[in-house]
Amino acid sequence: MPRHKPAPARYELHPQLAADTHPVAALELCELRLMDDSNYPWLVLVPRVADARELIDLDADQRRQLGDEVDRASRLLQRAFRPFKLNIAALGNLVPQLHVHVIARFEHDPAWPKPVWGMIAARPYAPDALVQRIRELQAALAS
Amino acid sequence: MPRHKPAPARYELHPQLAADTHPVAALELCELRLMDDSNYPWLVLVPRVADARELIDLDADQRRQLGDEVDRASRLLQRAFRPFKLNIAALGNLVPQLHVHVIARFEHDPAWPKPVWGMIAARPYAPDALVQRIRELQAALAS
Repeated sequence: MPRHKPAPARYELHPQLAADTHPVAALELCELRLMDDSNYPWLVLVPRVADARELIDLDADQRRQLGDEVDRASRLLQRAFRPFKLNIAALGNLVPQLHVHVIARFEHDPAWPKPVWGMIAARPYAPDALVQRIRELQAALAS
Repeated sequence: MPRHKPAPARYELHPQLAADTHPVAALELCELRLMDDSNYPWLVLVPRVADARELIDLDADQRRQLGDEVDRASRLLQRAFRPFKLNIAALGNLVPQLHVHVIARFEHDPAWPKPVWGMIAARPYAPDALVQRIRELQAALAS
């Protein structure tokens, strides 16, 4: 019987990220998504690269592009929300698919000054607020 | 009386970072330092750029160089410690000077799977262990 190479892995958004976030835009490399936690303006970038777990799993061009898209998401949050501080992180201890958090932090937010992960229960957006927040982000991204 | 422009700000390591970390190497853009917490192999990169707070405060060349040096620190930790996961973050909620954490995480480390910040009291290295850890990192960096 002929031996076949396994089919190359295809990128697919991890189900946990699909459940926790909502789509905002498709950037060149990454899906730009909004974390469903109204405690903070919180974006997540997911490179559409199969099997990437670490930043250093990307090739040089993808890595550079990811940096550019993290910066674009950062400027978007700065313009739209004037945060006191940005928090940017690639952790992935719970969800193995490579993803980067870009979060607008304020001195009056419920986790301040601690990092946001695992501190405060997520406060999902109400449906209207979710739609408005995503429109606001898409408009700021286009401007 | 003639008016003078204020002198341009000079880069100086923030006293809190100086207190919490030890020098490992001077990279092209960043100081590479070891966090004095033996709970995790934990590096900190500090770009020698005055007044930088956010990644997007860097110019394009600096930003790219920082990405390269974060990757270099990541590969260094991977080679030296074979971690289960890398955690990479620019937070700066407490120390305003721009710095990037690159941390080797293990399923058996004391904060796993949570992020390391504010979870577990730091466990400073004993003097001999500190010297050995820094030598180990410097050797891996040179190889």
